[in-house]
Amino acid sequence: MPYFDAASSAPLHPVARQALQASLDEGWADPARLYREGRRARLLLDAAREAAAEAVGCRPDELSFTGSGTQAVHSGIYGSLSGRRRVGRHLVVSAVEHSSVLHSAASHEAAGGSLTEVAVDRTGRVSPDAYAAALRPDTALAALQSANHEVGTLQPVAEVAEACRAAGVPLFVDAAQSLAWGPVEGAWSILAASAHKWGGPAGVGLLAVRKGVRFAPQGPPDERESGRAPGFENIPAIVAAAASLRAVRAEAEAEAARLRELVDLIRARVVEVVPDVEVVGDPVRRLPHLVTFSCLYVDGETLLHELDRAEFSVSSGSSCTSSTLTPSHVLRAMGVLSEGNVRVSLPLGTPAEDVERFLDVLTWLVTAVRTKLGAPGAASGPGAAARDAGAGSGVEAGAEAGTGAEEFTVDSLGRLCPIPVIELARAMEGVPVGGVVTVLADDEAARLDIPAWCEMRDQEYLGEHPVDGGTAYRVRRRS
Amino acid sequence: MPYFDAASSAPLHPVARQALQASLDEGWADPARLYREGRRARLLLDAAREAAAEAVGCRPDELSFTGSGTQAVHSGIYGSLSGRRRVGRHLVVSAVEHSSVLHSAASHEAAGGSLTEVAVDRTGRVSPDAYAAALRPDTALAALQSANHEVGTLQPVAEVAEACRAAGVPLFVDAAQSLAWGPVEGAWSILAASAHKWGGPAGVGLLAVRKGVRFAPQGPPDERESGRAPGFENIPAIVAAAASLRAVRAEAEAEAARLRELVDLIRARVVEVVPDVEVVGDPVRRLPHLVTFSCLYVDGETLLHELDRAEFSVSSGSSCTSSTLTPSHVLRAMGVLSEGNVRVSLPLGTPAEDVERFLDVLTWLVTAVRTKLGAPGAASGPGAAARDAGAGSGVEAGAEAGTGAEEFTVDSLGRLCPIPVIELARAMEGVPVGGVVTVLADDEAARLDIPAWCEMRDQEYLGEHPVDGGTAYRVRRRS
Repeated sequence: MPYFDAASSAPLHPVARQALQASLDEGWADPARLYREGRRARLLLDAAREAAAEAVGCRPDELSFTGSGTQAVHSGIYGSLSGRRRVGRHLVVSAVEHSSVLHSAASHEAAGGSLTEVAVDRTGRVSPDAYAAALRPDTALAALQSANHEVGTLQPVAEVAEACRAAGVPLFVDAAQSLAWGPVEGAWSILAASAHKWGGPAGVGLLAVRKGVRFAPQGPPDERESGRAPGFENIPAIVAAAASLRAVRAEAEAEAARLRELVDLIRARVVEVVPDVEVVGDPVRRLPHLVTFSCLYVDGETLLHELDRAEFSVSSGSSCTSSTLTPSHVLRAMGVLSEGNVRVSLPLGTPAEDVERFLDVLTWLVTAVRTKLGAPGAASGPGAAARDAGAGSGVEAGAEAGTGAEEFTVDSLGRLCPIPVIELARAMEGVPVGGVVTVLADDEAARLDIPAWCEMRDQEYLGEHPVDGGTAYRVRRRS
Repeated sequence: MPYFDAASSAPLHPVARQALQASLDEGWADPARLYREGRRARLLLDAAREAAAEAVGCRPDELSFTGSGTQAVHSGIYGSLSGRRRVGRHLVVSAVEHSSVLHSAASHEAAGGSLTEVAVDRTGRVSPDAYAAALRPDTALAALQSANHEVGTLQPVAEVAEACRAAGVPLFVDAAQSLAWGPVEGAWSILAASAHKWGGPAGVGLLAVRKGVRFAPQGPPDERESGRAPGFENIPAIVAAAASLRAVRAEAEAEAARLRELVDLIRARVVEVVPDVEVVGDPVRRLPHLVTFSCLYVDGETLLHELDRAEFSVSSGSSCTSSTLTPSHVLRAMGVLSEGNVRVSLPLGTPAEDVERFLDVLTWLVTAVRTKLGAPGAASGPGAAARDAGAGSGVEAGAEAGTGAEEFTVDSLGRLCPIPVIELARAMEGVPVGGVVTVLADDEAARLDIPAWCEMRDQEYLGEHPVDGGTAYRVRRRS
């Protein structure tokens, strides 16, 4: 039963399990106590800190264990902002950070701080120059992930760190997705990571704060973990986290090479076997085990559900698979297609056969979903069958309501992704070259997916304007 | 090797170990994901929440799992204060709360909130009337522990909750020390607890917030655990926490009765076998497994060290065993002796023989320490041997410097607990009834221990006043 969502949470590594079980007997006591049981717990904690610090590339006394990666991010960002409050309250982040970073940034802004989000290119990567240009004299902190969690693109951390160093601004790096593969290069100041992403147990985050970085822990004072992570240390889990980080690092080079080939296979084959697919993220400067693609005219929720029935577990940045009804902020920042989005992140040890079988299943499922939805180019189907059949057939109605010889309107109000794009594509089939189709839609995904469809189909996107109950998107047929 | 510090952290319960190991295979995935592994993780999490909620006495949807008891306390107090900010910013706590509560209260006060600490009696208990009198129209929150962590005294939570209900103030209960023994009685509003106190794993706290209580989670938003505990859930640890809570509850009644007898034995025997000992805390309305006593003329650090050498692990509220050089705030609030303080908290299953052996060892050790320190009444010894021999002999020097026939001064400046009290006691031996001894001391413990000594010895404590480099404490010989 192939689990292809390691980027959400990796299965527990065998070394983590062994270390956890081995330390349950000695790791339960309070390491601050001076009696025998406390001293033993302290020894375990100290050894784990040494091992984890070596893997991070910092001194043991720079490293705190937190109760989660999220806690490490929150503590790292707030502690740094607060420590540099005299300098200013400006925070720089990339537009594609993890939600824990962006939520911290939003809270900072809501509390009166200022915020700059650095845009990314279509591969999801920030430009070091653009990042450097965002730094100001009142910048208290800059944040940049080491690698993107949704599309795998590596960020130019070392170059941005250099720009930050030159500007005297500390750089916070969210290394959650990359730490298994190696230490973060460059002169970062603060680093956060999460053990369950590399096969360690949940409940352990890492927070490294370089000596000399101004840092003022927030919240009520607590004497544990240099005051940076309140609460009693979970030592067996910490021991398991450190041991498994060493273990995955020991196999990282060989496993990265192997998984990179499997991902290359997916990248190459998915565009062959699935028509109208967009593989997103940087094809080379990327995490070895992660690939993301979007399938035109496909409902992400149905696709995930069908993949799950076929025993493949993946995640998606499509709007229809999340509770917010908006596409992933990463895909939006990249300006790429979000419908039918699938993220595959391979755990260590994934066999090649599973990947082959995944491609077969995917091909079949995408075809089936498109046929069911009446997508253009699908083998056959009942026509524009909206998921909500009661909403009527927007394509025909819209085409009939065309306002001139070369102006057609498609009314997709009330229809969810991928229906507006399917209706646009079907309408375009009947439009002469030079003709314009206006799609009326209220689904947030349309804002991203209609321009993305134009880019994929080489049609001219004319822009959007608000209308009663939604937005009008205008597209001119180019060929 | 008897471990008698369950109130700091209990050894992992066998049921916790089994549940942890059994859920490692299914508890690692993201419970928010809809695929197979996520659904399995969600089932484990839901079942654990049901079980823990039943043990707490709340609805499952009122209960969040946090990353530690401390996190539950911080989140519970700040969330409640913030949720009732329109009512006011006044917080009421008892003077003997756990440091996580008092530190939260201090931070609230530092941020402009107001704070009332309700005093306790000599047993460590708050008076419900005094607590009720502290409630004001602008009181946002009241906090009271279910039982004290240092002396075991049960607090009148149900009566205080009733007073809070009448005043329309929510009551936060820190139930960390008592939850193993049973649910907290009374109409509390918010409750916090910590799994490693009942034999569950570290890394799991409980935060219950009753429906209808105004609560505004602080910090960056996070969708997990009702927004009250950011970060990826540690499901195997949560499963282990819930399973072990059920297990300890199943044996709670029988084990409470058994341990209560052992504690009664300690309470009765320690005053027989160790001269000049004060057993503190309520003798009846108390936790079943916890007893605290203080030994006059004994250095807590040496006593703990010697007990550890004899393989007994206990903790202490004496100043000389902590890094702060001040006695425990609980003992101070109670106004009881802090020197030679020992807290014994018996884990489940403690055999009676261990307790018997502890009393034997304690008797011998206290005598040895007193002899070494030259305490009054010790079998023999080298006289007033201060720990720091280089500081000279305060007793003789002070006595010679007496300023009149009935006025004697003891210079204990620079001497740490228990030396000032030993020197006072020795000086009193040469003072006629009605005579006054003034002790000069700069050790913080003297402020608590000299009046406590007077109470134990039935001598008249006349008060203190500042002097160059310390404080003068005046005592009149009564008999």
